Amino acid sequence: MIYRVNLTIIPLHNMILPTPSSKVIKYLILSGKFMPSLRHLVTSRDKYKPLLITNLGKDGKRITNGERGVINAGTQLNAFIAFSNAKSSLFSEIRGGEFMTPYGEFYIRANNVESIDIDRIEQKIVEYLDKNIDITFITPAILSSKLLLPPSMKEKFKDINVGFSTLPSVGLIVAHAYNLYCNVIGKKEIENKAFKLAVLANALSRVIGYNLIPVTTGISKNRKPRGVIGWIKFDIPYEKLKRRVLKYLIVASYLGIGRSRGIGFGEIKINSNPIYGNRKTYK
Amino acid sequence: MIYRVNLTIIPLHNMILPTPSSKVIKYLILSGKFMPSLRHLVTSRDKYKPLLITNLGKDGKRITNGERGVINAGTQLNAFIAFSNAKSSLFSEIRGGEFMTPYGEFYIRANNVESIDIDRIEQKIVEYLDKNIDITFITPAILSSKLLLPPSMKEKFKDINVGFSTLPSVGLIVAHAYNLYCNVIGKKEIENKAFKLAVLANALSRVIGYNLIPVTTGISKNRKPRGVIGWIKFDIPYEKLKRRVLKYLIVASYLGIGRSRGIGFGEIKINSNPIYGNRKTYK
Repeated sequence: MIYRVNLTIIPLHNMILPTPSSKVIKYLILSGKFMPSLRHLVTSRDKYKPLLITNLGKDGKRITNGERGVINAGTQLNAFIAFSNAKSSLFSEIRGGEFMTPYGEFYIRANNVESIDIDRIEQKIVEYLDKNIDITFITPAILSSKLLLPPSMKEKFKDINVGFSTLPSVGLIVAHAYNLYCNVIGKKEIENKAFKLAVLANALSRVIGYNLIPVTTGISKNRKPRGVIGWIKFDIPYEKLKRRVLKYLIVASYLGIGRSRGIGFGEIKINSNPIYGNRKTYK
Repeated sequence: MIYRVNLTIIPLHNMILPTPSSKVIKYLILSGKFMPSLRHLVTSRDKYKPLLITNLGKDGKRITNGERGVINAGTQLNAFIAFSNAKSSLFSEIRGGEFMTPYGEFYIRANNVESIDIDRIEQKIVEYLDKNIDITFITPAILSSKLLLPPSMKEKFKDINVGFSTLPSVGLIVAHAYNLYCNVIGKKEIENKAFKLAVLANALSRVIGYNLIPVTTGISKNRKPRGVIGWIKFDIPYEKLKRRVLKYLIVASYLGIGRSRGIGFGEIKINSNPIYGNRKTYK
């Protein structure tokens, strides 16, 4: 099961939020004040850990750079924490109230908990199957190009630092989502499978449109990896592959994609749009 | 040797150019009025034929859709024809003058012939080696996604029509350029090599910036494949691979990239820019 705990967060005085603003919730978990059982996920250095703590949102946008302006007391901000493999005791830890943090004082309310059963994800796939796949990167996705390297060559090129991809391909997105999915279900030794999936997804996808923007992210003063925001719309005209891809992306729509999801990077949304256009023109 | 014949083309009366405007030169070659020895290249259906006939250019832009407006008599238009493997007799066919076409009457002047010796391309590579690779798609590049499919799987997926990629990857660009290069030098049975090159170029390239725009091209009323215009800037922090990539791209800077180069699609330019940014930030 994957869970998403939707929160309303209200500053109790005028304040400048930290960068990234997800630090507020991260602090509350690490200090044991809110859902302390998630601490092991927050501190885990696993690249594909099943955790997304979003940045705080205002007016439909996430605040990634808190230093940009003052947030007034009483402003309704929203965020969510998504995770999987939770102990049932965790849910008794979802208690709202007033909390002091190094960034200021907040009132927090848990609105609801959504969940998705990975064993029943097929039902969800069907909703998307006859439509284009339309992904919005709500916050910068930090994607590692080297996922596209054949596993047999990883050793040879281990000293070559190519950094993160500012221009994602369908294969790179899907390979990240697949790694995350496998981590959630506990599947191991998937490197070759992830590589083959990436190759197939690149070769058999039809990108219909996109508006992608490379960005330099500010995780901290010294860590500013490159990432990408925007949207991409594509189809995979091979149903067997499309079903697989949708399965992984639906999981990613809860847990995000790429690096630093634990502090709100790589939050994505899957929209569903009818397939349009005359396919016969794509010759 | 690859040659580029640079032309000035002046309409002798006000006219509407055809779409694409490269049809003017194509007509002159096919009708035997100008450089008739290129006819076999113009009519060749080889996807990687060594021929680029550009669209007509005005004010630094190519006219892909001639129906957009009237071109006045006396306007100086430019274009070039690039090709390889030419007989030396071809050059005696470069004769300017006044020519009648179904689109109107033109004065044509050959300004100069540039050439590049593929056996000496190393000298050119050195110019770009310590810089980012910056490619501009001057006219829409029509790139086939299926070049990214492992050759062993081509048969299995032959009925799946994914069309052309509106979102190019470094690997896809390089694989197209490699196929063209091999055709120029007469190298055969390169499918596996092209696939491996594409995989490596995707995995080991660092895209620094881009502004890519998917477009629907108008080759004719019934053929409107999707393509891409704009620019992409990347580096390959592995010199051996970068040298190979540059070799193929330099050839493509003469002959273009992707489909329909014989009518002016896929014209590209390689700019050279200093590598900037602190690489240590790309962790």
